[in-house]
Amino acid sequence: MTRSRQLRLGAFMRPVSLHTGAWRYPGSYPDANFNFAHIKSFAQKLEAAKFDAFFMADHLAVLNMPVEALKRSHTVTSFEPFTLLSALAAVTERIGLAATASTTFDEPYHVARRFASLDHISNGRAAWNIVTTSNPDAALNFGLDEHVEHGERYKRAREFYDVVTGLWDSFADDAFIRHRESGIYLDPEKMHILNHKGEELSVRGPLNIARPVQGWPVIVQAGQSDPGRQLAAETAEVVFCSPRDLDGGKALYADIKGRMQAIGRNPDHLKMLPAAFVVIGDSIEEARTKRLSLDSLVHYDSAIASLSIALGHDASAFDPDAPLPKDIPETNASKTGRAQVIKLAQEENLTVRQLAQRYGGYSGLAFVGTPKSIADEMERWLDEEGSDGFNVVFPYLPQGLDDVTTRLVPELQRRGIFRNEYEGTTLREHLGLPRPKNRFFSD
Amino acid sequence: MTRSRQLRLGAFMRPVSLHTGAWRYPGSYPDANFNFAHIKSFAQKLEAAKFDAFFMADHLAVLNMPVEALKRSHTVTSFEPFTLLSALAAVTERIGLAATASTTFDEPYHVARRFASLDHISNGRAAWNIVTTSNPDAALNFGLDEHVEHGERYKRAREFYDVVTGLWDSFADDAFIRHRESGIYLDPEKMHILNHKGEELSVRGPLNIARPVQGWPVIVQAGQSDPGRQLAAETAEVVFCSPRDLDGGKALYADIKGRMQAIGRNPDHLKMLPAAFVVIGDSIEEARTKRLSLDSLVHYDSAIASLSIALGHDASAFDPDAPLPKDIPETNASKTGRAQVIKLAQEENLTVRQLAQRYGGYSGLAFVGTPKSIADEMERWLDEEGSDGFNVVFPYLPQGLDDVTTRLVPELQRRGIFRNEYEGTTLREHLGLPRPKNRFFSD
Ligand SMILES: Cc1cc2nc3c(=O)[nH]c(=O)nc-3n(C[C@H](O)[C@H](O)[C@H](O)COP(=O)(O)O)c2cc1C
Ligand SMILES: Cc1cc2nc3c(=O)[nH]c(=O)nc-3n(C[C@H](O)[C@H](O)[C@H](O)COP(=O)(O)O)c2cc1C
Repeated sequence: MTRSRQLRLGAFMRPVSLHTGAWRYPGSYPDANFNFAHIKSFAQKLEAAKFDAFFMADHLAVLNMPVEALKRSHTVTSFEPFTLLSALAAVTERIGLAATASTTFDEPYHVARRFASLDHISNGRAAWNIVTTSNPDAALNFGLDEHVEHGERYKRAREFYDVVTGLWDSFADDAFIRHRESGIYLDPEKMHILNHKGEELSVRGPLNIARPVQGWPVIVQAGQSDPGRQLAAETAEVVFCSPRDLDGGKALYADIKGRMQAIGRNPDHLKMLPAAFVVIGDSIEEARTKRLSLDSLVHYDSAIASLSIALGHDASAFDPDAPLPKDIPETNASKTGRAQVIKLAQEENLTVRQLAQRYGGYSGLAFVGTPKSIADEMERWLDEEGSDGFNVVFPYLPQGLDDVTTRLVPELQRRGIFRNEYEGTTLREHLGLPRPKNRFFSD
Repeated sequence: MTRSRQLRLGAFMRPVSLHTGAWRYPGSYPDANFNFAHIKSFAQKLEAAKFDAFFMADHLAVLNMPVEALKRSHTVTSFEPFTLLSALAAVTERIGLAATASTTFDEPYHVARRFASLDHISNGRAAWNIVTTSNPDAALNFGLDEHVEHGERYKRAREFYDVVTGLWDSFADDAFIRHRESGIYLDPEKMHILNHKGEELSVRGPLNIARPVQGWPVIVQAGQSDPGRQLAAETAEVVFCSPRDLDGGKALYADIKGRMQAIGRNPDHLKMLPAAFVVIGDSIEEARTKRLSLDSLVHYDSAIASLSIALGHDASAFDPDAPLPKDIPETNASKTGRAQVIKLAQEENLTVRQLAQRYGGYSGLAFVGTPKSIADEMERWLDEEGSDGFNVVFPYLPQGLDDVTTRLVPELQRRGIFRNEYEGTTLREHLGLPRPKNRFFSD
């Protein structure tokens, strides 16, 4: 039986995994960052499991890290999202394709065009993850000496969104007549010249591509700060977020959907999808062991730095194989972080080394258990309005992905909270989002 | 028997054709600008015929034209090149993929990344057509009030090339060790931080993607001015050009290869590929008739403007169905243009209408005849060093492309001047170009 509230599932991908030890996991493809064939097989499996979307995170610099961490990191290099997702568009038919594009370091004409083009090539499956790029190293790759200030970034992002969506509306859906006999290809009355001149941007238009199949590609937002949330409430149709637990999820859900109501937007027109790290075993115990074994592949030297940051205290003098010392001083820098570490150490009975490897590997929201126990948790998030679904992070590939598609998804389908078949052909249709009206032309 | 000098063939594509009347031609796909399936079939047919490369021209604005021309133009909208070529990379295996990217309106970090990514996805088939963007309307889409001055554009282009190639060399080919046991993913000694600070650009690096499969994607140049030619001589490995006839081709060939020798580059390391419009018939007469019939689909109102420009004289008062008047005054604006129009009118015995439609359709170098007569002409260009091959422009699609791949190519193969099978897997291998050394690391 199908329930009225349905889970939406995205795959939050880095080719090898977000987990820094994953490339060393047995059966993994350490070269997936260079190997299109692997990623193609991931996308095709996700589509066979009826996932809503394949999402490609992106950064505009080699992430800044000490050389000890750098040399162990598979994150240094990977495909650029537009080229990768366009290639995937050609070898898939239904799954949505979400690319990250920065409003701080790109031009609205380019961004509008590329997403429109991806939407045409994929027949309506593109989504734009709007980011303002928090990594300060990116600025140095784009002619600046220092990063653009946070408020300024969000100001440009808001205007950038207006320009991009305005450019997508350059042509009415019925602008192209293509009448062979008369020789009329298009109706110039149905072409709009934007002539945008704002505080941050000046763009004439029109865009040199027809209106996207979806009207506009789906708008995704991943910022967590106050301006980030406000931008989401005003513009986003999907929010990628990273609450630590159900309470955090509920608070964020209520906050963003409340902001939408305050400005007159229908809260159903935005789907909250927290990132969730999913590790599946035959028993909860086995799943935990898998996770510990994955974490153990994170090198201690790079891991300990992450633990120190979380604790707000240098942890490098602690005995790695002993439990966390009891007397770690509180600091202003990290009250919540310290409390979380202590709670985790107790709950899972972890040594300093294991804690460090957890923080150095992946420390966000995780569901670790059997298909049944994880489906229970996901169902609870859905019922209690902690989220509208999840952006699944696979611990290791391909096995972690296969576990989700062949073991968890069938359990969710059995419960009637996840589709057995795609409802339509476009990403908007999968997500139950309306097609935006053209702001310059009525249908 | 294979001859030592071999033709290289590129396909110079716009989805519907460069010819402005082509979308009305019987059997054409007027919606090819929106229809990936059509373009995919074109690329696959070209690959089956062993073409070196599929080249996608690109512009960063709707081309500025009077509304009478605009409404009849299929060129207004089309796919963005990176998204399109990446999608094609996933459904082809050997054919090269050349995308246009502007040095005036893009950032070197983005350009370097996208080409590197396309090169990885396609296993070494990417090429970068460096353009400085001559269309002044593009500037208005990128925050400027007027176009960047010509010399300034080429100055930036030269530095842009240095930065992009420097970024491609960020990692040695053997930088990625991926040793599971020790946990070492890469050798930081084999990563180079560019730290470029030049007059036009400042880019730190490293690029966040491994060195392209080809070392560098193949560098293509299409500028015709003196700085354009000089840039080609210094940097290009393929030149797209548009000489009007064999004499023009020979002059350009000698000029560019001479400039290369002057700076110590091996002239074999650059292939001159003029654009050539190819119309094939069972007889020369039939081919000419096909071309006239295609030209007749160009609307007179838009065609007459093109003829007036070529003549340097307003042609709108002439009788459309009479021969060209004898007494057209010479102007300073267009001495060569006027002489060419008069020569063409006599040679092909054309009316004013037919002349106008020729100029409004496609007026560059054309080979119109039988497979044998065209192969004769191409062979002559090759033998007399007018070119190293051609960038074929199809008059109409799909028929014009099928004529080339099924009738002309076999004739060229029979003569031993075009391959029967790809020699290698990368575009560099097809073109016989060396793999560039990494400027920061020796092999
Ligand atoms: C699930 C998720 C995915 C994200 N993906 C990206 C990404 O691909 N690229 C990026 O630059 N930032 C990404 N971010 C970071 C956010 O865009 C944002 O920069 C960061 O959360 C800081 O938010 P703030 O600037 O609003 O404080 C992601 C965040 C989350 C929660
Ligand atoms: C075969 C050929 C293909 C070209 N393709 C493009 C293109 O895709 N995009 C573009 O902006 N210019 C293109 N151009 C134009 C040149 O890049 C250049 O802007 C123009 O020839 C003016 O040259 P100049 O600025 O050196 O005088 C092309 C030219 C030729 C001959």
